[in-house]
Amino acid sequence: MATPKILVLGAGYGGLMTVKGLTKSLGASDAEITLVNQNPYHYFTTELHKPAAGTAHHDHARVNIASVINTNRVNFVEDRVVSINPSEKKVYLENNTFDYDHLVIGLGSAPETFGIKGLLENAFFIRNIDSVRMIREHMEYMFARYKNDPKEEYLTIVVGGAGFTGIEYVGELVDRLPELCREYDLPQEKLRIVNIEAAPTVLPGFDQALVDYAVEYLKGKGVEFYLGVPIEECTKDGVVLKGGEEIKSSTVVWTGGVRGNKIVEESGIETMRGRVKVDENLRAPGHDNIYVLGDSSLVIPKDGERPYPPTAQISTQQGQYLGKHLPQLMRGESVHAFQYAPKGTVASLGNRVAIGVVGSKKLFGGSASFMKKIIDLRWLFLLGGISLVLRKGKL
Amino acid sequence: MATPKILVLGAGYGGLMTVKGLTKSLGASDAEITLVNQNPYHYFTTELHKPAAGTAHHDHARVNIASVINTNRVNFVEDRVVSINPSEKKVYLENNTFDYDHLVIGLGSAPETFGIKGLLENAFFIRNIDSVRMIREHMEYMFARYKNDPKEEYLTIVVGGAGFTGIEYVGELVDRLPELCREYDLPQEKLRIVNIEAAPTVLPGFDQALVDYAVEYLKGKGVEFYLGVPIEECTKDGVVLKGGEEIKSSTVVWTGGVRGNKIVEESGIETMRGRVKVDENLRAPGHDNIYVLGDSSLVIPKDGERPYPPTAQISTQQGQYLGKHLPQLMRGESVHAFQYAPKGTVASLGNRVAIGVVGSKKLFGGSASFMKKIIDLRWLFLLGGISLVLRKGKL
Repeated sequence: MATPKILVLGAGYGGLMTVKGLTKSLGASDAEITLVNQNPYHYFTTELHKPAAGTAHHDHARVNIASVINTNRVNFVEDRVVSINPSEKKVYLENNTFDYDHLVIGLGSAPETFGIKGLLENAFFIRNIDSVRMIREHMEYMFARYKNDPKEEYLTIVVGGAGFTGIEYVGELVDRLPELCREYDLPQEKLRIVNIEAAPTVLPGFDQALVDYAVEYLKGKGVEFYLGVPIEECTKDGVVLKGGEEIKSSTVVWTGGVRGNKIVEESGIETMRGRVKVDENLRAPGHDNIYVLGDSSLVIPKDGERPYPPTAQISTQQGQYLGKHLPQLMRGESVHAFQYAPKGTVASLGNRVAIGVVGSKKLFGGSASFMKKIIDLRWLFLLGGISLVLRKGKL
Repeated sequence: MATPKILVLGAGYGGLMTVKGLTKSLGASDAEITLVNQNPYHYFTTELHKPAAGTAHHDHARVNIASVINTNRVNFVEDRVVSINPSEKKVYLENNTFDYDHLVIGLGSAPETFGIKGLLENAFFIRNIDSVRMIREHMEYMFARYKNDPKEEYLTIVVGGAGFTGIEYVGELVDRLPELCREYDLPQEKLRIVNIEAAPTVLPGFDQALVDYAVEYLKGKGVEFYLGVPIEECTKDGVVLKGGEEIKSSTVVWTGGVRGNKIVEESGIETMRGRVKVDENLRAPGHDNIYVLGDSSLVIPKDGERPYPPTAQISTQQGQYLGKHLPQLMRGESVHAFQYAPKGTVASLGNRVAIGVVGSKKLFGGSASFMKKIIDLRWLFLLGGISLVLRKGKL
């Protein structure tokens, strides 16, 4: 019998954990493992708000894949997935085509615009290294222009969405303000950070005391909140709110949500807004050799109705599950169901302040910020051991 | 008799040297000295090509005026000159109006576009701190965009003019290339630096051996030269050359020349392309209480026909002359003519290579580069003594 081919698409949290686990749970001759990723690096989605604001260099939010996987065991292919064909058991890449026996899909998400006009054309998105580097450079270019042509919109940053990413990004911007004023000789009182959210509150789902703390902190730093106000349209000049108010801004960053990847949607696998509602072993419905994880997947709690929100935490656990149990699943053995164990959630508000829940404990301010950094370090540790923690970690 | 009022407009090389000289050549009660400048800082025009390329931070090209003048003796006013009225003996600023008895004008230059269509609207200019910060940020923003939308024009920098500034800027860009490729994950072979000059040679007026050295060095680094080819038009998409060839570029930087300041032109003082042809004591024709120096002035050598080119060197010497002799000139005494003593000219090609003539000696490569840095340090020394050299100087 030929060696089975395992193909993992995407080196995000889930894909990388799968591959790392498989090199332990499989013998060298048990399977051929191939990992496909469009960049030579993995990036830390949970940290992208920092390079997007310029509070950290984008190199702090990525790591070379070859440095954290065993390349003797895993064939790493830097290429872009074009399409998946389950009936042929083939994946088409820009420069390659791969057969597989078992496929793991972790292709991540795409921005969800909720049909807001002009958003895709005129807004920026906190998505990946390329997009956040562009946000930072764009914002800085606007600031540099102000001294030559003092238009107020150059100094107004609109953040659409006050969910996790939106609030964390606003927190970084607030940290960055003094530096920006110094660097571009700007009058601080002219800089505006406007956070717009259609829901009536920031950080929906968070404990009210934490939400209040965050809003008060950010308001104290000058952030303007528009809550319960949907954006109707994003134009070249800024945003138009429901009701007609226009906010002029050269830099609109949309953080309002994500949906599944188009490639998965077009593969013939059943999806809901691009995401695959997986079975208890993370299999795609009707495909016993296709597994889906991370933002591409939809996991509904046993006793719940609403799916878990897409996070790095659940992706990591899914990857750990597949890394450990895929060999059994491949052999047709019965494996206990994947069970997400939420460890807590901490949202940073810049470098020194955060809010969150860890276990059943609410954390505020400095102690939450410390916990957030521990969480970030934990991922580095899972990925590359103590040496990566020392190389990339920051407290 | 009332204390005479000396008003110095512009804290460039000439204006600053004048003021610094006057605080030595005049007693504390001999005159009221006022220096007007639109920024709180003086910037080093000769170094602007570095922050424009990003090889040095713009703070290395400026110094706070209050830190290099005696503010007990000189009234420093941060304001923008709006108009000069010689018959009223008044200068109108944005927020003030000043009377004067003796006026020193050192308001610098403006870009000379030679009527090239679209240049003022679409090109960037190496003029001051604000403009070079904008060039750098614009260029970097274009590079950041490339990974999201790979258009070749984002990676093409067109430098119009191969005079002193143009060649020095190209030299810095060449130095910066590897860093830029690293920072923006760009393929180096896609980056283009195109230098376009209407004259048949780069660095007109320079010794041919030096010119050859510069061109060969820069060509070796991948710079493309278009010599003897005027730019016909600058558009949003790039430049159109005479003959119709179009070069697509998102970043066109014009270094093709300067002309005098419009404010001087509109003051009623006789000018040629905005510059005042001064008498042997640097006085404006027909105004025995108005002195003009730097790029605002035009000095014709005794035995020559063409005026000296506008440089920091001649401005500095003019300022030293007025700083020393203005008190005598104010009293109506006869003073020997201003005599420019060229000390030589060195053009840098990045941080390690240069070409130039010092005295009668031609210099190439590293030794010329060393000499260039000594020249830059000399200005720091004149301005703020050894402490400024230590604080701002770089070798």
